[in-house]
Amino acid sequence: MRKIKEVIKAIEDLDRGMMEKAQKKLDFLTKPQGSLGRLEELAKQLTGIKRTFDIKLKNKVIFTFASDHGIAEEGVSAFPQEVTAQMVYNFISGGAGINVLARHVKARVVVADLGVKETLKTESKNLKIKKIGFGTKNFAKTKAMTKKQAQLSIAAGIEIFEEEFSAKGRSAPGEEKGIDIAGIGEMGIANTTPASAIAAAITGAKVRDITGRGTGINDKALKHKIKIIEKALLLHKPDKDDAIDVLSKVGGFEIGGLAGVILAAASRKVPVVVDGFISTAAALIAYKLEPKTAQYMISAHSSVEKGHKIMLKYMNLRPLLNLDLRLGEGTGAALAMSLVEAGVKIMNEMATFENAGVSNKE
Amino acid sequence: MRKIKEVIKAIEDLDRGMMEKAQKKLDFLTKPQGSLGRLEELAKQLTGIKRTFDIKLKNKVIFTFASDHGIAEEGVSAFPQEVTAQMVYNFISGGAGINVLARHVKARVVVADLGVKETLKTESKNLKIKKIGFGTKNFAKTKAMTKKQAQLSIAAGIEIFEEEFSAKGRSAPGEEKGIDIAGIGEMGIANTTPASAIAAAITGAKVRDITGRGTGINDKALKHKIKIIEKALLLHKPDKDDAIDVLSKVGGFEIGGLAGVILAAASRKVPVVVDGFISTAAALIAYKLEPKTAQYMISAHSSVEKGHKIMLKYMNLRPLLNLDLRLGEGTGAALAMSLVEAGVKIMNEMATFENAGVSNKE
Repeated sequence: MRKIKEVIKAIEDLDRGMMEKAQKKLDFLTKPQGSLGRLEELAKQLTGIKRTFDIKLKNKVIFTFASDHGIAEEGVSAFPQEVTAQMVYNFISGGAGINVLARHVKARVVVADLGVKETLKTESKNLKIKKIGFGTKNFAKTKAMTKKQAQLSIAAGIEIFEEEFSAKGRSAPGEEKGIDIAGIGEMGIANTTPASAIAAAITGAKVRDITGRGTGINDKALKHKIKIIEKALLLHKPDKDDAIDVLSKVGGFEIGGLAGVILAAASRKVPVVVDGFISTAAALIAYKLEPKTAQYMISAHSSVEKGHKIMLKYMNLRPLLNLDLRLGEGTGAALAMSLVEAGVKIMNEMATFENAGVSNKE
Repeated sequence: MRKIKEVIKAIEDLDRGMMEKAQKKLDFLTKPQGSLGRLEELAKQLTGIKRTFDIKLKNKVIFTFASDHGIAEEGVSAFPQEVTAQMVYNFISGGAGINVLARHVKARVVVADLGVKETLKTESKNLKIKKIGFGTKNFAKTKAMTKKQAQLSIAAGIEIFEEEFSAKGRSAPGEEKGIDIAGIGEMGIANTTPASAIAAAITGAKVRDITGRGTGINDKALKHKIKIIEKALLLHKPDKDDAIDVLSKVGGFEIGGLAGVILAAASRKVPVVVDGFISTAAALIAYKLEPKTAQYMISAHSSVEKGHKIMLKYMNLRPLLNLDLRLGEGTGAALAMSLVEAGVKIMNEMATFENAGVSNKE
């Protein structure tokens, strides 16, 4: 198993030289320079990550990690806690939103149990069991998890990524790699609460500016949620520059796992499409462990959760889609993957001014 | 050939009853209500348009219409006028941005010459020649076209739509229809100028608040472009409530043609994805002829051209994508078609709370 430190050490800056070459390539295509906006940026970023123009995006993998949260007992969610496990069954039988959208963009979904409260009863090969615990503890009262568990959750994410990355038989003949582009998403009743706490702890923004309605709580419950988070931050005093400390005090197992996926992806030169609010909290953890990871991230969409913008700004990321999504699971990431693919195709399939015999700008 | 009046008469309001049923269907799916935001809206709109849940989006057709503009001689564009014809050749040989993105979403591109300045030399079946003239006149000096030509351009758009709509052999066996969803796009050097003039004439907004840099003119050229449009509006005094008057005085043949496509699509209960700035000016013309057309429109993306927002607001439309696109051709429409498809799949493929055994909100 690759250790967290090893993985972090393997993360390099993007290849600026290749990105400049990509820019030149884009500028000779039959369109006004820059007129395909963010699609061109994506093509450049992917070239910088992969260090080649021959970019394959055949193996699209969405990691949807599930876990439960002790904080749910504070009544911070509109849904009962058993929904986490129920939704995992839904994921593995293909009926959830992420399954539909992953099929739409021809991605596969890797579902993992990082810490669901109950023992899941299934023999499906579509579920990876990597339990760090049976749900976190209620961080209104005590730390969500131990430091060791925080590290184990990140390591589990790395392990799951590596299993898929080196999976044979999935990719084209001659190709060794099983992941060309990754996406991250999650399921965990109450998990906008740890995500908000992580966001406030790391960015330093006020809890009330970060915290939203999650799956749809009312005004009273929202006030309560804010108070719970404020108190927890006062109680635990997480160190904003120690991501493991933040994760252990107010985080979640699936959040740690997704941070691990990001670290592993960056170390393997694989771009990662980050879904919404909770996935972006995981991205913050990865970013604090190694800021270079942000170069590998693509923010999928602007979540309805208001703190999302604050986290994205902290990492200097700009979301691609603005579709009022607030489901999670990786649904926005799936849609955004198709845009990344579009950007790469633009760079590689469009005619140049010269080839098409089109006059350039006067 | 269907006459414009006939087509307009055939346009009906969406089926509100079916839309309510779609909303109920969406609310029983395994997700917090409304959490898939705009994807859910799209599913509802499509159900209202098609009056069935059995929505097929197999035949995706993008209409990319080209034409030249007399106003180009005022130096309002960064590119020389011959680029219009050159780009038509690029479209039919498959090397332009729209070709790449249409392939990406599995749409076909129907290219038509509504008024390119030169006689296009090609025997390609991929180009429809429906010339209304060899470019419009310079509307800084005289009307862009006659009223008759304005009507003919709209009629040509209707005709092109109908040819594709009834095309046999393209669709699945037993299906009569050749278009399940339409998109509109355009090519015409200098055509942000007529589009800006139409927008100002119809919405009443100030020319300087509407007019942008098109393919990339500098500050001086932008000032000049604004002055040209202001003077033209004073000269011609187009009647904002008479779309044919506006189109003939400051419009373009491809813009009239695309307005015709929208009218025809709405009359046939086919949704139309409207690309960027110029396509939205065409949508304004269609909207003024029959406001019900807006119910069939889907705004693809928010253009970099600043007047775009003003036009969308006038028709109460909200763009789906915000990718800093400013190419036209239907490129944004192609990308948005994939989102429409995603919305329909969500409605029809996701499991319900009951089927999946998932507990609903407390």
